[in-house]
Amino acid sequence: MTHTLNSRDACLAADAQDELRHTRNEFQLPEGVLYFDGNSLGALPKAAIARSNDIVTEEWGNELIRSWNTNQWFERPKLIGEKVADLVGGGEGNTVVTDTTSANLFKVLAASLRIQNEDAADRRVIIAERDAFPTDLYIIHGLNDLIGNNYELKLIDAPEELEGVLTDHVAAVVLSHINYRTGYLWNLNEVSKLVQQRGAHIIWDLCHSIGAVEIDLSSAGADFAVGCTYKYLNSGPGAPAMLWVNPKHQDRFIQPLSGWWGHARPFDMSTTYEPAEGIGRYLSSTQPIISLSLVEIGVDITRKADMSKLREKSLALTDLFIELVESRLSHHPLTLITPKDHAIRGSHVSFKHPEGFAVMQALIAEGVIGDYREPEVLRFGVTPLYIGYADVWDAVETLRRVLDEELWRKPEFQIRGAVT
Amino acid sequence: MTHTLNSRDACLAADAQDELRHTRNEFQLPEGVLYFDGNSLGALPKAAIARSNDIVTEEWGNELIRSWNTNQWFERPKLIGEKVADLVGGGEGNTVVTDTTSANLFKVLAASLRIQNEDAADRRVIIAERDAFPTDLYIIHGLNDLIGNNYELKLIDAPEELEGVLTDHVAAVVLSHINYRTGYLWNLNEVSKLVQQRGAHIIWDLCHSIGAVEIDLSSAGADFAVGCTYKYLNSGPGAPAMLWVNPKHQDRFIQPLSGWWGHARPFDMSTTYEPAEGIGRYLSSTQPIISLSLVEIGVDITRKADMSKLREKSLALTDLFIELVESRLSHHPLTLITPKDHAIRGSHVSFKHPEGFAVMQALIAEGVIGDYREPEVLRFGVTPLYIGYADVWDAVETLRRVLDEELWRKPEFQIRGAVT
Repeated sequence: MTHTLNSRDACLAADAQDELRHTRNEFQLPEGVLYFDGNSLGALPKAAIARSNDIVTEEWGNELIRSWNTNQWFERPKLIGEKVADLVGGGEGNTVVTDTTSANLFKVLAASLRIQNEDAADRRVIIAERDAFPTDLYIIHGLNDLIGNNYELKLIDAPEELEGVLTDHVAAVVLSHINYRTGYLWNLNEVSKLVQQRGAHIIWDLCHSIGAVEIDLSSAGADFAVGCTYKYLNSGPGAPAMLWVNPKHQDRFIQPLSGWWGHARPFDMSTTYEPAEGIGRYLSSTQPIISLSLVEIGVDITRKADMSKLREKSLALTDLFIELVESRLSHHPLTLITPKDHAIRGSHVSFKHPEGFAVMQALIAEGVIGDYREPEVLRFGVTPLYIGYADVWDAVETLRRVLDEELWRKPEFQIRGAVT
Repeated sequence: MTHTLNSRDACLAADAQDELRHTRNEFQLPEGVLYFDGNSLGALPKAAIARSNDIVTEEWGNELIRSWNTNQWFERPKLIGEKVADLVGGGEGNTVVTDTTSANLFKVLAASLRIQNEDAADRRVIIAERDAFPTDLYIIHGLNDLIGNNYELKLIDAPEELEGVLTDHVAAVVLSHINYRTGYLWNLNEVSKLVQQRGAHIIWDLCHSIGAVEIDLSSAGADFAVGCTYKYLNSGPGAPAMLWVNPKHQDRFIQPLSGWWGHARPFDMSTTYEPAEGIGRYLSSTQPIISLSLVEIGVDITRKADMSKLREKSLALTDLFIELVESRLSHHPLTLITPKDHAIRGSHVSFKHPEGFAVMQALIAEGVIGDYREPEVLRFGVTPLYIGYADVWDAVETLRRVLDEELWRKPEFQIRGAVT
């Protein structure tokens, strides 16, 4: 379809026929901005405005402490977890929304290593990707350091390397389902099975894939998964993360952040820790209720949409982005680092440019918000819930103007600050 | 003063002369409710309503990803930490607001044990209180279990036992500055020094004391402290917790939840973890911005008040509560379990009653919200920012009516659910 979109009018026509065009109305997007950074922080659902006000004034202000019961605050990590489960093929009772992705990775990796240690004590290697979002590597380091550096961390530099390093000594493999820079997409089903055939556990980091691609953790028989809710799930800045554990592992180990929320009977105030049965033991303690509650709003919007249609549109939009850059910006040194093959592409596209940092600052100043990632990477996230074909056209045209007119040369665009 | 408050009119007169009477206007309290549970969940500051709306619509909705820079989202754990530091004598650069009390205890206990292991490897005992809020004991258990159960957890049953168990083998002592049930208050200065004289580290859990009593961690030379912001600091349900580390310890160990927010240069996306200098390394990863931001509102109200005046009024109110129960409810089987001595009393009062659970349910139904804690404990938190003398009078009178008229015998008050 996108092969015919060689004009803005053709893009507008595609938007008019888009089955998902109405979901954009669910979001409060700022005027004059084209937002291609939903893979870093999703946009604001309109319903989140009233909901946050309700949580603050009614649930907190009026109900006060009674809300733990009347508004099911205590149950929310599980209740919202069940909704997230719908989007990842999680099955019932295997998913919670709690804490951060980093803390959740710590929990599941600790569980994985302990279970492996009981089953196969000579497995002392953890495999991860050199190009993983760094916090995953740091958490592996932090856990390993704490338990005596008994594990070797082996980093692979390319997907093809995985099979070769899956020796009998591998305990766990931590992979980002979609790479945060390149947008490379692992085949979750096949890789889960491959890793397990070799006796290792597979731990998926779903940060850049929940809500962006179809996921079926249960069919894949994956071992563990963690991931963000504030990207494609539009749950709000820093909203608590998801955590999923294969039911066969849930009751085998007490994860080390064993706070009172994970106790079998938290209100008995027992001095000894007795873990809840099942996924509940992966909770630790009192959650940030306002931020947590808004996860439900974002997740509900995605649940109402059809994931296969979202994926179809996402691929059409990233196809279009790539085609337009190749056809209209070929005179500039932009190098695509995102796979063209649909089977291994997520929902963002990235290009290297030697002046990538300044180019992105200039682009943002012109109203197109993408983001920059070291080194040299211009990254554009595509959220089909609120991005259309003409948006892609306009974004690429603005990029063309920034490059043709060398707007990125302005001194203010060279200054580096924190960019997330 | 409270000796003269033997009538409701006398209480009203005391309220009229109360220097802190205007701070009540800063809170949105529900009609018809007397709220004596601010030590579990603080009341809603009016300013939090507009602020939360601003964070959602402006910071998230309009600024989107740019807020990480323009609204200092990334710096907020430290910026708000500095404000909390004012309330605990934290000094500059030693306090952050992040994650949960349980996760923060995990971090500082791991640091403490590692530092001790380097300095004095034969210290293999951790001391805590049997009557600690259980999550502290569970976290100690979880960490110890993870690192090979090399530590013995020794529980003391009464404050007098502490000195006797401080042998040369003690690595760390974890104490609740104020006990969540009885309201017992440790002498933070003296106990910190005692523990350190014996070569152990002192880790304070300040959940029930921040904003309730004067605290000076720097003068005390304490080692580590963690605590809630959602109780006396009125920061909202489950708001992120504080964490303080004595500067002498900060750079000695990489805490194990070593996520990217604690990295020296988080945006370099380096594959190796290099901890930030100082307290920054105690951050782990992306925080729930909405819940986090509201901490500032609550903390600012307490910072504007004078902690010594808050403490003075708090003691007057708890004195009054105790005196009224003793003088007017002596015909009922209520047993005070809170110390009368000001030097060892926090900001809540607790009484045992054989039918405590049902009595509290009946009391709540009559509009007086306290809470119930196993076993048999009726607990009443006093937040002098929004509670007055006549409120105490009315609460005790309602309790008298519930007991005199045996309202607690109604069947609906016998049903146990989750109570926090």
